[in-house]
Amino acid sequence: MDRIPILKLGGTLIVTIQVDMHDRLALALEEDLTAMIVRTGARGVLIEISALEIVDSFIGRMLVSIAAVSRVLDAETVVAGMRPAVAITLVELGLELTGIRTALNVERGMAMVQARLVEEGDGHGSDRDGHEE
Amino acid sequence: MDRIPILKLGGTLIVTIQVDMHDRLALALEEDLTAMIVRTGARGVLIEISALEIVDSFIGRMLVSIAAVSRVLDAETVVAGMRPAVAITLVELGLELTGIRTALNVERGMAMVQARLVEEGDGHGSDRDGHEE
Repeated sequence: MDRIPILKLGGTLIVTIQVDMHDRLALALEEDLTAMIVRTGARGVLIEISALEIVDSFIGRMLVSIAAVSRVLDAETVVAGMRPAVAITLVELGLELTGIRTALNVERGMAMVQARLVEEGDGHGSDRDGHEE
Repeated sequence: MDRIPILKLGGTLIVTIQVDMHDRLALALEEDLTAMIVRTGARGVLIEISALEIVDSFIGRMLVSIAAVSRVLDAETVVAGMRPAVAITLVELGLELTGIRTALNVERGMAMVQARLVEEGDGHGSDRDGHEE
């Protein structure tokens, strides 16, 4: 498997991480996501990681990097489905997922992305540079 | 990876096939899907296979089996994202995906599932045993 499939659903791109990430795959995912945000005008990127038993600094950096690039392209990144053990380890290691919002599952993550779109539909020019938590 | 994550989105369960399927994994997926249909009351199962370069008779049987079990539990199965080469091979081999509807991508697949729900909301008791094509 040399590419992780990206599903487009409305204005959101959904990625499920199922395989062990390595350098090349992470890079390919970032490139594919970036290209797809531009092509589809997606405003949200939803990354589902319930299959991951470990989120180490490599995966952490990948997520942060995807979020940063997506933000530049005006798409918000939400990580969904984190296992409890992973959450505990992240906090214990002091690993911060800067610029990434987290949701309990994909359904709530979608709601987050959609809420943001509705919000911007009302106000426009909302605080996009703010670091959401 | 011993389990393929299943995403719930509204009344639909979404599965992305990214790894090589083997017996145990296929069985686990079928069990997980079945349990999740019962638990969530989902009415649609969307299987995304754009990462698959080959759909052999093993994968074909797995899909047909998932569809059959899901149908018994009143959920429709849609396979989305099939590669052109895979479609050609399926036809050439005469492999039939009985009881499975196919969609070009996840977005259209979701529309299919939702259309069915709306349809049933109107009429109820629609021809569920009919082999859709």
